[in-house]
Amino acid sequence: LPDTSELGGLRVVLVATRNPLNIGASARAMSNFGLTRLRVVNPFDLAFREARSAVGASHLLHTAEEHTSIAAAIADCTLVVGTTAARNRELQQPLVALQRGAGLIRRELSAGNNVALLFGSEKRGLSNQDFSYCHWLIRIPTCDPHPSMNLGQAVAVCLYELARQPRPRSARKLAAAATCEQLERLTVALVEALRISGYANPRSVSFDENVRRTLRRLALSAEDADSLLGMLRQIIWKLRSAS
Amino acid sequence: LPDTSELGGLRVVLVATRNPLNIGASARAMSNFGLTRLRVVNPFDLAFREARSAVGASHLLHTAEEHTSIAAAIADCTLVVGTTAARNRELQQPLVALQRGAGLIRRELSAGNNVALLFGSEKRGLSNQDFSYCHWLIRIPTCDPHPSMNLGQAVAVCLYELARQPRPRSARKLAAAATCEQLERLTVALVEALRISGYANPRSVSFDENVRRTLRRLALSAEDADSLLGMLRQIIWKLRSAS
Repeated sequence: LPDTSELGGLRVVLVATRNPLNIGASARAMSNFGLTRLRVVNPFDLAFREARSAVGASHLLHTAEEHTSIAAAIADCTLVVGTTAARNRELQQPLVALQRGAGLIRRELSAGNNVALLFGSEKRGLSNQDFSYCHWLIRIPTCDPHPSMNLGQAVAVCLYELARQPRPRSARKLAAAATCEQLERLTVALVEALRISGYANPRSVSFDENVRRTLRRLALSAEDADSLLGMLRQIIWKLRSAS
Repeated sequence: LPDTSELGGLRVVLVATRNPLNIGASARAMSNFGLTRLRVVNPFDLAFREARSAVGASHLLHTAEEHTSIAAAIADCTLVVGTTAARNRELQQPLVALQRGAGLIRRELSAGNNVALLFGSEKRGLSNQDFSYCHWLIRIPTCDPHPSMNLGQAVAVCLYELARQPRPRSARKLAAAATCEQLERLTVALVEALRISGYANPRSVSFDENVRRTLRRLALSAEDADSLLGMLRQIIWKLRSAS
């Protein structure tokens, strides 16, 4: 049996899922590989309620958390990994094959941190806005001309690969990493500061995403994130009182 | 992208599948990993027809072969591998973890042989009789208390592992192995000889399965299988004319 005790910090996050069967299938794959924390973000219509009320719906499904934003669903995580079939898309995040990505995730988990693994909707996958919350992206190495996997099957394959891999040799003790909640507070503050100061076009939708991506590339520690946030808040206060 | 050209000899065989969605999901996973040969054995009721007539049903599903026996579905294969969650069962075949099993399958495929990978019904999995056609069994390393995977997800995980693994270093050139059709002819002949000669209880259901398992442990070459069959037929003729 695989040692899945180290996977306890992993949160599977389903974003805008449309089909209750896929929510149920994802929950089942989680049970198969010893995971318990499912989070759903804005599931389509009644999909989540239907999945929960299905005959044989698991305890895991009943204790799943529902969130209205990705930011809320990943707040307690230090690493956020998106999944994509990478069809015809210009990706702005680093893309790694599942096998390598699973190794990186296990290293983060074995350091005692929480990791979010994001799966997009059946039709469109994750959006560019969704991706802007991710540190990097995973691709399951599928073949053209049918690269896109069924959602429940993609979840199963990712969890299999995570459970399959041996325990990392030695988990370096790292400084506690900034959580996504801290990073998001920093993102909001920096965007605000840049808008007030006239750096950013206030109507540019992609500007926030740019800032979010940039901050996630920094590998900030929790302590540094806090002190940066303090600086930014002071700057904002000054900008406001000056205008 | 994985090199799946070597997986061309792999046949996915779904035995007594009950749910058309699972047939469709299995076909989709095959497309994702570059496979084309799907065979179904006695699908439940209209499951197969429904799966084929579903909107967006693939070319692969339309060209899937339907068989009324496992023996017919695996006739052109030299290696037959069953899948099992291995719950509370006394298995008579060797059981290997998926990762190791996938390596053995790839070696057989790279020698130019065909391999059948069998998946049982959603409710009961493969039966002991189904297992008797298998050289050995694969288990996906899942966790108690939820070891049993959804069928479509199990297919996806197995094919991912097969596609993931690197090409075997050097495929030893082996003598052409006996196909399952040859092995089955040999099984039938040996059972007949043993019954006529009074060795076997003609009413024992498990006797055939025992003989079938025994012959599959021998790693017979095609040539040796032919000559053994010739010997047995001669023996049967003699036994008949003597009685």
